[in-house]
Amino acid sequence: MSLIIIGTVAFDAIETPFGKTEKIVGGAATYASLAASYFYNKVKIVGVVGEDFHAGDIKSFNDHGIDTEGLQIKKGEKSFFWSGKYHNDMNSRDTLVTELNVLADFDPIIPDSYQDCEYLMLGNLTPQVQQTVISRLKKRPKLIVLDTMNFWMDIALDDLLGVIKNIDVLTINDAEARQLSGEYSLVKAAKKILKMGPKYLIIKKGEHGALLFHDDLIFSAPALPLAEVFDPTGAGDTFAGGFIGYLAQVGTINFASMKNAIIYGSALASFCVEKFGTEKIKDLTKAQISKRVEQFVNLSSFIIEK
Amino acid sequence: MSLIIIGTVAFDAIETPFGKTEKIVGGAATYASLAASYFYNKVKIVGVVGEDFHAGDIKSFNDHGIDTEGLQIKKGEKSFFWSGKYHNDMNSRDTLVTELNVLADFDPIIPDSYQDCEYLMLGNLTPQVQQTVISRLKKRPKLIVLDTMNFWMDIALDDLLGVIKNIDVLTINDAEARQLSGEYSLVKAAKKILKMGPKYLIIKKGEHGALLFHDDLIFSAPALPLAEVFDPTGAGDTFAGGFIGYLAQVGTINFASMKNAIIYGSALASFCVEKFGTEKIKDLTKAQISKRVEQFVNLSSFIIEK
Repeated sequence: MSLIIIGTVAFDAIETPFGKTEKIVGGAATYASLAASYFYNKVKIVGVVGEDFHAGDIKSFNDHGIDTEGLQIKKGEKSFFWSGKYHNDMNSRDTLVTELNVLADFDPIIPDSYQDCEYLMLGNLTPQVQQTVISRLKKRPKLIVLDTMNFWMDIALDDLLGVIKNIDVLTINDAEARQLSGEYSLVKAAKKILKMGPKYLIIKKGEHGALLFHDDLIFSAPALPLAEVFDPTGAGDTFAGGFIGYLAQVGTINFASMKNAIIYGSALASFCVEKFGTEKIKDLTKAQISKRVEQFVNLSSFIIEK
Repeated sequence: MSLIIIGTVAFDAIETPFGKTEKIVGGAATYASLAASYFYNKVKIVGVVGEDFHAGDIKSFNDHGIDTEGLQIKKGEKSFFWSGKYHNDMNSRDTLVTELNVLADFDPIIPDSYQDCEYLMLGNLTPQVQQTVISRLKKRPKLIVLDTMNFWMDIALDDLLGVIKNIDVLTINDAEARQLSGEYSLVKAAKKILKMGPKYLIIKKGEHGALLFHDDLIFSAPALPLAEVFDPTGAGDTFAGGFIGYLAQVGTINFASMKNAIIYGSALASFCVEKFGTEKIKDLTKAQISKRVEQFVNLSSFIIEK
């Protein structure tokens, strides 16, 4: 029984109005696995890095109980590198550098020890690689969550439609939901997307929270209003990792557990943006997480007398 | 004991992707007073119309128990007229015509019978007129709510800052909160605005719901995701009217009652957008309102086990 997270493990160089970093460890699988590790102790990564990746960086995954057997290290090659600069509103950014490096011909390897996978998080990657991972698992996981982005809708829509037929939960943002469905109303968009395969759709709205759709049910999760967003990099991946990690912990898949999973994922994401990169989510305590979740409860609760 | 609503009473001609109207009755005070009338039976309007306003239009206020003694009818003059066309996303619109007419030299008259005012809703108008209404009330109401917009921040900021010193609740949208405070973060914006006078700040975010700020407390209210927005005209005024009407009904002013008032206001606003103008909010039943509020409860509730 394990939770597999596939996605990029990379170097990022980030510039925000508050400062800039050297190359730091980033990537969707990095953020998601760290977040998931606070809820579940059988988190396993599938990814690829170059030999520029340090042993210490791998150790810091293992220190969180994250299994890195599925993280390939390519000799003589370099890790995926992304550099970006956020604008003053912190909601938009310019990509300065994208070097695919090892990611260009990434062929995901699923070690035998990973075949006990019950929960699968397919981080944002080419739909073809996401499909390959599903195909290489001998037993269909209990829950498959897929994250994607508008880029794949633009250049690989057929592949994307192919893989989302096979998943349980799709996470995209509001603009992407509109693009994928051709509907402006998110209610109509969700109806169409739920017919494409996923049983659950999560629409991420950044500072406006998230919506969960399932059959005719809708849940609106708040985002924690923050005085300072220091660095938004990885917030979506942290959300996804916290989400699936929480579900793996409780072991129940239904609308009620998904609602809570969204709150826990949002709580983890709210920590992520408080410091550069993974700095804040590397060292959280259970007490910090509980307290943050309590803030979400207070933020959105009201009592209507009947 | 009464609830006074001051604002425009006007003719609107509205065009949306779904159709267009002839001149229909609109204006902030129209929407707000209709919404408030579902909660409180002592709603009184202050406003001005021309002689083109029909007796039947006034009767339809009175049919809702709304007192129109403070609605001046100017002989030989025409009512305020606004015409607008919504874009396909229904979030933006072009103003086609604005004829101020009677509004140009509006001098609000407070009849003696209105001096029992406990709740005062200052709808979006020039800050000077809003201040005049406060000055003409012999006793300071228990609660003063003020709605305004970016236009007055642009051309009459000093007047606006003057009147918001004297109120309890300010309602503006997120862009206006940023403009008024000079802060991008809504948490920082709220801190600054709460120092300008109001004890409560409501930031309206349209399809993303609303935020309520008071001291260090924050409440995030969801918006009901809708398949179809037919006509957004008056939704903000309907929200404000439902909000203050609910508070007048319960008679308690605190953070908990404000949270519920926002939910009731949002519920009324969600009806408003379902048809042109006031068509939908003219004929609601208590059962319809309760059912809609129940949808808001279901939409945002989750249970975290400790």
